[in-house]
Amino acid sequence: MKGFAVMRIIRSVSSMQRLARRWQRQGVRVGLVPTMGYLHEGHLSLVRRARSLAGKLGKVVVSIYVNPTQFGPNEDFSRYPRDFARDTAMCRAAGVDVVFAPSNDQMYPADGERNFSTYVTEETLSRGMEGVTRPTHFRGVTTIVAKLFNIVQPGWAVFGAKDYQQAAIVRRMVRDLNFPLRIIVAPTLRESDGLAMSSRNKYLAGDLRLQARVLSNSLRKAQALVRESRSALGSTALKKELKRFIEREPAARLDYVEFFDPQTLIPMPKVTRGAHMALAVFVGKTRLLDNARL
Amino acid sequence: MKGFAVMRIIRSVSSMQRLARRWQRQGVRVGLVPTMGYLHEGHLSLVRRARSLAGKLGKVVVSIYVNPTQFGPNEDFSRYPRDFARDTAMCRAAGVDVVFAPSNDQMYPADGERNFSTYVTEETLSRGMEGVTRPTHFRGVTTIVAKLFNIVQPGWAVFGAKDYQQAAIVRRMVRDLNFPLRIIVAPTLRESDGLAMSSRNKYLAGDLRLQARVLSNSLRKAQALVRESRSALGSTALKKELKRFIEREPAARLDYVEFFDPQTLIPMPKVTRGAHMALAVFVGKTRLLDNARL
Repeated sequence: MKGFAVMRIIRSVSSMQRLARRWQRQGVRVGLVPTMGYLHEGHLSLVRRARSLAGKLGKVVVSIYVNPTQFGPNEDFSRYPRDFARDTAMCRAAGVDVVFAPSNDQMYPADGERNFSTYVTEETLSRGMEGVTRPTHFRGVTTIVAKLFNIVQPGWAVFGAKDYQQAAIVRRMVRDLNFPLRIIVAPTLRESDGLAMSSRNKYLAGDLRLQARVLSNSLRKAQALVRESRSALGSTALKKELKRFIEREPAARLDYVEFFDPQTLIPMPKVTRGAHMALAVFVGKTRLLDNARL
Repeated sequence: MKGFAVMRIIRSVSSMQRLARRWQRQGVRVGLVPTMGYLHEGHLSLVRRARSLAGKLGKVVVSIYVNPTQFGPNEDFSRYPRDFARDTAMCRAAGVDVVFAPSNDQMYPADGERNFSTYVTEETLSRGMEGVTRPTHFRGVTTIVAKLFNIVQPGWAVFGAKDYQQAAIVRRMVRDLNFPLRIIVAPTLRESDGLAMSSRNKYLAGDLRLQARVLSNSLRKAQALVRESRSALGSTALKKELKRFIEREPAARLDYVEFFDPQTLIPMPKVTRGAHMALAVFVGKTRLLDNARL
C-alpha cells in the first residue's frame, strides 16, 4: 500500500521555479489552478479537473495569492477573506501536490529605485463590463497570471467560468503572447438556490444572502424571455426590464448587465439564443458577478 | 569525422514551440539571440557568445524579425534593410542551430474581431531617452521579446549593449514577470573609426558616414572631460557643450544626450566617473544611438 503523498507549501518564487524546472526536465505534466484562497467547492471542482488531467504521474499546483494589483483603491483588498489553514487542508484532501503561496514582497519587489514596473495589458476585451467599473482590474489579473505561468510553467491552467470576461482575457493573453500552455474553463458551481459560489459570498449576512439569489434568477428570467420570444429582443429594453427586476430587491443595485458574443465579447444590440449574458450587482456593499449562455 | 550540422529555418510559431518543448524534455540548453536581421559583426559577436554558453550539446536560436510594433508611424519600418539570404548564410557559418523567422501574420494575428490585443509594458525605465522620442517603441520591444521568450523558451538570451536602455528594460521585464531565463548583455562592436555597428549604418551615404563618427567622438570627449575634472560636472552645461560639439557636423542634429545611473537609468544632475552616457543623433535622416560608461 502506498502512503499518502505529501503536499508541499512553497512560499518563494525561486523554489517554485526550481521545482518547475525539475519537473520540465523529467517530462512531468503540470496543471495550475490560480486562486485568491478562501477556497470553496467551486475552486475544488477546478482542482479536481486539474487532478484528472494530470493523471497519477502529473502534478497539480494551486496558487493562493490575494493579488493587490487587481484591486482598485476603494475595493476590498484588505478585508478580502483569508483562511490559509483551511485552504491547505482542503488542497491536501483534494490531492494537490503543491500550494504556491508567495508573499507580496516575493511577487512585487519594492526595491527603492528599482520597484516593480512591468505590466501585461489586454486592450480590447478588457474595455467593457468589469473594465468600466474596475479600470485597472484586468491589468492586475493579466500581470499576475503571466507571472504565475512563468513561475509554475504549467502545461495547462484551469479557470472558473464565473469570471467569464477574465477567462476570455486570459485566453487572449495566452494566444497573443504565445504562452506554451492551454487554458481550461470549468463551469460555475452554484449553491442549491442558484447563487454562484464565490469567496465574497461570505460578506452576505442575513437577508442579503437571500437577496443575492436575484443574480441567478435574472439569468433564468432572461433565458426564458429569449427562448419564448419569436424574434430577437432589443438589448436596451431587456436591460431595463432586468434592472427593474433586480432592483425590486431592496439592497440590490445593478452595476451592469450586458449581452454579447461569447467569443469576441462584442455587445449585441439584438439578443438571441446563444448570446452570452453577464451582470454585476451590488447586494449591500458586496459586488457579485454571474453569467450564462442564453 | 562528424559532418557539419544542418541549420534549420523555422517560420511558424507552432513548429518553433514544438521544437522548444522537445529540447526542454531532453534537457537541452538553449540560447536565444533576438535580431531584426541585416546582420553585422555586432550581431555575430552575440551569436558567438550564445554559442560558447550553449556548448557543443546546447542549441543556439537566432530570431530574425523586423517587429512592426516597435516602429512609430513615421519611422523606417518599411525601408528597414533586409537581406535574408545573407543573414542565413552568416548564421550557418557561425554555427547557429535554428533561425526563427516568422511572418507578421504568425506574430500578430489579424483575425477580424479577434485581432492581437495584448501588450507588455515597462513603465519606469521606458519613460526617458528613447521613450520620449519614440513613445510606443519599448512597448513593442517588450511585447515581441516576451513572445519570443515564450516561443523559444531559452535558458538565456543575449542582447547588445548598443541599445543600453532596451537591455535594461528587458532585464527589468524578466525580473518583474519572472521569465525563467537569464539576460546577457554583450559589448558594443565598433568600426575601426569608432562608429558603433548598426544595421542602420547602411543608410549613411558618402560624407554622412564620416559625420556619424561624432557620436563615439562625443562619448570620448565626455569621458575626457569627466576624468580631467576635479569636481562633478553639471549635466546641463555638459549637455550644452556636447550639443555644440555634435552640431558642428553640418548634417548632425542632437536628439538627446543623457547622463544617468547605469542601474536605475535615473538622470544625474552632477556627472561623475561611473555615470553612464547615452545619446541619439540624427545624421541626415538616420537616427543613430551610442552609449558608454564615463
